[in-house]
Amino acid sequence: MKSLDRLIKCFRRLQGVGPRQAERFALHFLRAPESEVAEFTDALLKMRANVHYCPICFSYSEGSLCEICSDSSRDFGLLCVVEEPKDIEAIEKTGSYNGVYHVLHGSISAIDGRGAEELKIKELVSRIENSEQEIREVIIATNPDTEGESTSLYLADILRGLVGKISRLGYGMPLGGHIDYMDELTLAHSLKGRTKI
Amino acid sequence: MKSLDRLIKCFRRLQGVGPRQAERFALHFLRAPESEVAEFTDALLKMRANVHYCPICFSYSEGSLCEICSDSSRDFGLLCVVEEPKDIEAIEKTGSYNGVYHVLHGSISAIDGRGAEELKIKELVSRIENSEQEIREVIIATNPDTEGESTSLYLADILRGLVGKISRLGYGMPLGGHIDYMDELTLAHSLKGRTKI
Repeated sequence: MKSLDRLIKCFRRLQGVGPRQAERFALHFLRAPESEVAEFTDALLKMRANVHYCPICFSYSEGSLCEICSDSSRDFGLLCVVEEPKDIEAIEKTGSYNGVYHVLHGSISAIDGRGAEELKIKELVSRIENSEQEIREVIIATNPDTEGESTSLYLADILRGLVGKISRLGYGMPLGGHIDYMDELTLAHSLKGRTKI
Repeated sequence: MKSLDRLIKCFRRLQGVGPRQAERFALHFLRAPESEVAEFTDALLKMRANVHYCPICFSYSEGSLCEICSDSSRDFGLLCVVEEPKDIEAIEKTGSYNGVYHVLHGSISAIDGRGAEELKIKELVSRIENSEQEIREVIIATNPDTEGESTSLYLADILRGLVGKISRLGYGMPLGGHIDYMDELTLAHSLKGRTKI
């Protein structure tokens, strides 16, 4: 059936959705009450209309500025650079950071052919240069993988001279882990970064 | 963000979709080009408008009758009863069945509280009683699980006297399987149903 196949094809575009799951999703919407379909399409279109990038930090925002950039109680001299908007959420949940953020929207990846010019790095540099308040420190919070590491090194190179201090999130053992299950690199980092008690 | 959370909530209603995957789906549609979003909503709404149950076999159909019920080369004296429309596809792929189908839309399940009255069983009985051409045989092709078995026994009870022959799909070893990995029940069925070579 053409209509059904067309919808299944649309669901296949979602990352990680195979032919079986796409079919199940399409059939779900075939059987769902009319009200659920209306709610779904309305939610999708409203989301597209309302959500956009915050012009300062490039996180998602519904207002003109995002919640964090428009919060005057934040420390605008402390800037944390992350790969994705969802990383902000994770850091916010710790409750131990009061600075602001900058979202790169990805990482430098030779394998995926994603270069520095595709990330919001130009925007980061001009943000730091034109900031009213001096930015004392940039914390680079890219992922602890190959791409995140290259991005971190690239950023450190570019930002040197622009800000007083450039730092990187600390490596070490995750809490609740077991030493015998830890990979050697993590353990080596955790030895190097040992703290006095 | 309200708009995003609302869409995530919509995706959570899909079977087997957890909070992380729902978020990924929502973000996919946030980043997708405008044309993909338009194609998706259009496909969903057209599918809802065009696809309905075939009034004879209760499979999905875009025309007034489904492709199989409107195909005069099929054998209307042979009726195969399945749980779901997708089971029809699987049987059609074998290329070794030329009869017609009847979709129950589920199986009798004490655990899920689904009784016989929720399935298209009344419709099956009246279809057989009012059929222009005599129905020689009903093949019960419900799933080989507890619910499928109960449904099969229930149907056999109801149809006895209405049709000349009632049959059930054969049990046995699946092709390409290994005997040492086979469960005992399947192996027992496969012994009982052994064929002379």
